[in-house]
Amino acid sequence: MKVYIITIGDEILIGQTLNTNAAFIGNILTQNQFEVPKTSVVGDNEAEILEEFKYAFEKYDVVIVTGGLGPTHDDVTRSCVVKFFNTELVKNNDVLTDIKEIFSRSGRKLTPTNEDQANVPKIAEVIRNSRGTAPGMWIHKNKKYFIVIPGVPYEMTEMMESFVVPKLISIRKDLKSVKIITNLQTTGIPESHLYDRLGNIEELLKGSKLAFLPNQYGVKLRLTVEGLTEDEAHDKVTEIEQTIRGLIGRYIYGKETDTIEEVVAKILSERELKIAVAESCTGGLISHRLTNINGSSNYYERGTVTYSNAAKVELLKVSEDIIAEKGAVSIDVARQMAEGIKAVSGVDIGLAVTGIMGPTGGTAEKPVGLVFVGICDDKICTAKEFRFGNDRLLNKERTSQAALEMLRRHLLGISYDE
Amino acid sequence: MKVYIITIGDEILIGQTLNTNAAFIGNILTQNQFEVPKTSVVGDNEAEILEEFKYAFEKYDVVIVTGGLGPTHDDVTRSCVVKFFNTELVKNNDVLTDIKEIFSRSGRKLTPTNEDQANVPKIAEVIRNSRGTAPGMWIHKNKKYFIVIPGVPYEMTEMMESFVVPKLISIRKDLKSVKIITNLQTTGIPESHLYDRLGNIEELLKGSKLAFLPNQYGVKLRLTVEGLTEDEAHDKVTEIEQTIRGLIGRYIYGKETDTIEEVVAKILSERELKIAVAESCTGGLISHRLTNINGSSNYYERGTVTYSNAAKVELLKVSEDIIAEKGAVSIDVARQMAEGIKAVSGVDIGLAVTGIMGPTGGTAEKPVGLVFVGICDDKICTAKEFRFGNDRLLNKERTSQAALEMLRRHLLGISYDE
Repeated sequence: MKVYIITIGDEILIGQTLNTNAAFIGNILTQNQFEVPKTSVVGDNEAEILEEFKYAFEKYDVVIVTGGLGPTHDDVTRSCVVKFFNTELVKNNDVLTDIKEIFSRSGRKLTPTNEDQANVPKIAEVIRNSRGTAPGMWIHKNKKYFIVIPGVPYEMTEMMESFVVPKLISIRKDLKSVKIITNLQTTGIPESHLYDRLGNIEELLKGSKLAFLPNQYGVKLRLTVEGLTEDEAHDKVTEIEQTIRGLIGRYIYGKETDTIEEVVAKILSERELKIAVAESCTGGLISHRLTNINGSSNYYERGTVTYSNAAKVELLKVSEDIIAEKGAVSIDVARQMAEGIKAVSGVDIGLAVTGIMGPTGGTAEKPVGLVFVGICDDKICTAKEFRFGNDRLLNKERTSQAALEMLRRHLLGISYDE
Repeated sequence: MKVYIITIGDEILIGQTLNTNAAFIGNILTQNQFEVPKTSVVGDNEAEILEEFKYAFEKYDVVIVTGGLGPTHDDVTRSCVVKFFNTELVKNNDVLTDIKEIFSRSGRKLTPTNEDQANVPKIAEVIRNSRGTAPGMWIHKNKKYFIVIPGVPYEMTEMMESFVVPKLISIRKDLKSVKIITNLQTTGIPESHLYDRLGNIEELLKGSKLAFLPNQYGVKLRLTVEGLTEDEAHDKVTEIEQTIRGLIGRYIYGKETDTIEEVVAKILSERELKIAVAESCTGGLISHRLTNINGSSNYYERGTVTYSNAAKVELLKVSEDIIAEKGAVSIDVARQMAEGIKAVSGVDIGLAVTGIMGPTGGTAEKPVGLVFVGICDDKICTAKEFRFGNDRLLNKERTSQAALEMLRRHLLGISYDE
């Protein structure tokens, strides 16, 4: 069963609002084994909407339209439905009761504009709205389904979950196969190198699909597997995931929506270890990420943003001579910073970064993007060099990711080298 | 000139990734007076992509395609372009040089997979990629334009800004009217209060449009004005903006895409003032934001993430008795933290925050969302209380915004009170 999603709204087209509705609908449908081959966005414009309705209803089994059902003059979806299906509006007393109920609850006066929302295209079965005044519409014609729901996310999600998806499931033909999607989060290795290390990808996948999704934090691998039964699909996922882990397991830090800060936070908490962080070039970003998790005071003791040389010397006991000799951006200073923050705060692990984030401040010898990460525990103090690009903010993000990945590998006893 | 945007990628369709690319492209095109009547998303599927290319290229003057240009097997956009335009791939030496340059900078080995990205459809003019390995393509055929750019946001935005938009502007026919969009950035006041303070909005706007766009950092006011000439439109903008500033000027911290950290950085740099920051609940976010700006070492001296009480006492000389008596989240501790960080670092201004970010850790007396911001210079040490919500990350972002806004008002001599 192929489903086409139409989002209506100028604010989406001109990029002032992200299309979270299409993402939600696409996600819940895919999770429930429906296929979503294409989606579109059109503005609050009658001619464009009617043309899109025609295109979609001819081509797809199910069309879901979201948005443009509000009470004001710029919402035209309902009148487009009336025109498209050559039908008329009739008052629906259930909907009118719902609307009156909402207004009495909030103590507001019902206006004719609101009352008009109880008028529904005659051809449609009403989808009642427990969270707002605009009803949804379920239209069944020519063995196809045309579904219209509000654009307010809070109302839309409720209608999808409690009505649209269950009803679509109930009417579809038996599924021939079950689809499972799994995500593996990697970092510290570029997309092309990952790809090469996986070797013969057709042999690995045997008909399943693997997508490489890079961003500044790493590459997400999305594995899509189909089977005749749930068990068969699960077995395939397990087998392929094991093979992948055998080839590139050291780069995989988590699954699904895991972030690296969540992963290291979990390890630190479980082992009852405390960490302190000394940052120069990242300016506080590593500490920010480590404290984004509820309960972070269990493992995070303190941090310093030791930007000036004076701060590095005063707060971290970095040697002035070493700074003079090697420079503030050097492997020795990174190591001393890690050692210093561990010593002054009395924690189990010290983590430190120093580098040149750019866009200015680089030299031939020490270019923009040069970074050193230091790490220190009771047994070892070490540091490693990284090279990133020219964009300041991306450099900060990549440096924070590299430091947290180095921490993860340190905790798990995986070598830092590629 | 009507532009149609096609985003390619299963991850968008199935709702794993929000379509920020279409939003960015729609936004920059609208800002530059292009019309975007419709956009679509299709998966990494050759048949679907080819059908969409056909539909779009027949119907629109300009088609912009983003995504599916990566080096791995799941990226099929380039081969679809070759098929659609019935052309062939030829090696482009400029692109090859760019790719080699990127790999040599990061010290990584170039693989055949990467090298293959230098092969470009013969029909296309190459758009060079300064931030990644996949080149863009500019195709001009049948008086229409077909433009293909990578899906990695960081590469896509650069190509749109520096190549695609300027080139589209240079080739379009004269416009009948001129539209100007101006954004005013406000913070520290809710949307409804702003609205009320603006009074009679129809009289203020005289036919122009004003949208209120709230997010966690404040409310952006988007003013859209049309005129027969550029001068006329500019005069209208100036007049309306002046009236708005007369009514709510103290809440406006910047224009267009200004961030509050850029605004305070500029003031601090101009006045040659140095700042140091002591953070508890924000965990480094304020320092991160203040160091996101190139040249931040001119005004930013150091920061501490004094999470534990011990760190507050040791690094900031906060009184142990005050912590015991009033609690670490208190107006007195915020003031002492600001005073302490100023004293130990010898800067002109100390800024400090302490609070309860949640979701757990609140009490009846000190609920989640309670925050104190302290500020201290040579003349005054003061602190102010704020109340935010229940979401941890949003609370960190709002707290950092409130602290930077308090700093801005302090520097400009505007009262902290609403």
